[in-house]
Amino acid sequence: MRVMLVGDAGEFRVIEALARTIAGDNDRNIDRLSKRGFRLRLSIGDDAAAWDAPAGVRVFTTDTMVEGVHFSLDTIGWRDLGWKAMAVNHSDIAAMGCTPLYAIVTLGLRGDIPVEGLAEMYRGMMDLCGKFGGAVVGGDIVRSPAFFVTVALQGTADEGATLLTRDAARAGDQIAVTGHLGCSGGGLRVLTEGLSVDEEAATHLKDAHNRPQPRVGQGAVLVQKGVRAAMDVSDGLVNDLEKMCEASGVGARVRLEDVPADDALKAAFPDDWPDLALGGGEDYELLFTAPADVIERIGNLDVPVSIIGDIVDGPPLVQVLDSAGNRMELGHGGWDHFERT
Amino acid sequence: MRVMLVGDAGEFRVIEALARTIAGDNDRNIDRLSKRGFRLRLSIGDDAAAWDAPAGVRVFTTDTMVEGVHFSLDTIGWRDLGWKAMAVNHSDIAAMGCTPLYAIVTLGLRGDIPVEGLAEMYRGMMDLCGKFGGAVVGGDIVRSPAFFVTVALQGTADEGATLLTRDAARAGDQIAVTGHLGCSGGGLRVLTEGLSVDEEAATHLKDAHNRPQPRVGQGAVLVQKGVRAAMDVSDGLVNDLEKMCEASGVGARVRLEDVPADDALKAAFPDDWPDLALGGGEDYELLFTAPADVIERIGNLDVPVSIIGDIVDGPPLVQVLDSAGNRMELGHGGWDHFERT
Repeated sequence: MRVMLVGDAGEFRVIEALARTIAGDNDRNIDRLSKRGFRLRLSIGDDAAAWDAPAGVRVFTTDTMVEGVHFSLDTIGWRDLGWKAMAVNHSDIAAMGCTPLYAIVTLGLRGDIPVEGLAEMYRGMMDLCGKFGGAVVGGDIVRSPAFFVTVALQGTADEGATLLTRDAARAGDQIAVTGHLGCSGGGLRVLTEGLSVDEEAATHLKDAHNRPQPRVGQGAVLVQKGVRAAMDVSDGLVNDLEKMCEASGVGARVRLEDVPADDALKAAFPDDWPDLALGGGEDYELLFTAPADVIERIGNLDVPVSIIGDIVDGPPLVQVLDSAGNRMELGHGGWDHFERT
Repeated sequence: MRVMLVGDAGEFRVIEALARTIAGDNDRNIDRLSKRGFRLRLSIGDDAAAWDAPAGVRVFTTDTMVEGVHFSLDTIGWRDLGWKAMAVNHSDIAAMGCTPLYAIVTLGLRGDIPVEGLAEMYRGMMDLCGKFGGAVVGGDIVRSPAFFVTVALQGTADEGATLLTRDAARAGDQIAVTGHLGCSGGGLRVLTEGLSVDEEAATHLKDAHNRPQPRVGQGAVLVQKGVRAAMDVSDGLVNDLEKMCEASGVGARVRLEDVPADDALKAAFPDDWPDLALGGGEDYELLFTAPADVIERIGNLDVPVSIIGDIVDGPPLVQVLDSAGNRMELGHGGWDHFERT
């Protein structure tokens, strides 16, 4: 079978092929948003997408994945690439306590990219939007010597809604995180280093890296329950927590033994799992802080919630304590250059 | 003086430098939007930008410029690059009959890009927003082997507002265009071919290419006056008009003698000006159609308006007629491969 490449097809046939690929699924995603009051008036094909919007809070984010920098087609399939390019944006919206709205996708394409690969990538975006909301309503396709995918995504919350921000952590707050950390970083190592890991564990870790689950519903619940300070974990726990400390003017103490690393990660990386959990990055879990009584009444989030430490007065430093309560020295993983002693 | 490069500075220092560069001007741009009801709550520095929004029509567009594909730093200065990267998005919003709102900027950066160049580029974006509205509220900086700039821009119109669309052209409509066509394409040739052109004319043509003027106010007036069909001219008059014909299911007849080409263009390109005006592209003028009585009552738009032809029944073809009323054969410029005879 002849593979159709972007260079043969040209911009307009690529756009047509992608629009055709997503039509049914995307229409359902659009319907769901239209029923919530965001009635789409124009989608792909005019100078801009357009919709009617009710009054309310709007959020706006964008994230880009560049081949050779953020991903390699050797270690991620097309469908997962689409999922992930959209998921990392959904994660930003979730970390504000909002829900996803309309997205625009920009593709920077080399001529030798297969059109069917791009179609599969868009199917991955539809998988993600089908599960977590949002819809694709436009984009731009440009020629580029580097293959990249940029998603710009809007989100929404009700009029007057409170947002989850990075600057709201206060001394005395507990620090908490959803899900497990380190699996994505572990998955990347399994994908790139060809480690001999139990097959089930390997699949779990690789999925954590290539198919992250944005915590869309959880972010909205956190706001309702009174949480004010949150961000998503994209650059690694210690690094991101330090950003929150800087924005809030506080310090943080984290107990390693309470940092949620799962059995698969510990089995695959018996020595390195702490580094991966503290600094592996691309976890896309929610990191949040709140007083103990607020954390207590959060209740069921459909994912585990772990209390991993405390916000303290002082300079914006993250201290990690071992099980004896001693301050850990620099790690040898990705997080060490972010710890200032 | 030592030049600071992106590779030395790192992502966070680049973001800080750019945020500092635009702070004052951007705050004024944000204030103007806040006073119109779009009160900004969070800008650069959290997971997403956030604002309170009234009910209304929202539009959403994005445009990307890739070095070596859409621009060369040999022929465009940093400040103009910023202006143009923003202007092409403003033009899309104008072509919907809307006004610009908040923008997010993505930079794909090689390590050898000078930080001061990027700062100058952001000053160019502020020049544009200062003149035409809009403000930058966030973005993403990524490492990339190809330097690119992506702007994602939202626009707005009042609740229930009519939009300018590509599918609203009707047989019997007159075809009109703002400003002059071909200067941008002529400017590109002056910039790349080193033609010997009168200096004043050369400056005018190069500015048309590097510093296009989006027709933001004009688009909104066209809606008020009853125009329904419009788009901006980015790929060249014939090519873009054909897209409008396809979307509307009509044909078009254009009289070359009525196509607005200015004296500088005609003097610099005595033989090629028709090709440049019909197919040069990147004019960012508004192309619109409406019944004669609607066109008549448009009145003053602060830019010339030229009636260049008629929408006709028939297949979605664009015919160009010479001054004797004869159909012109294929041109030898950029537009010829778009004409189907």
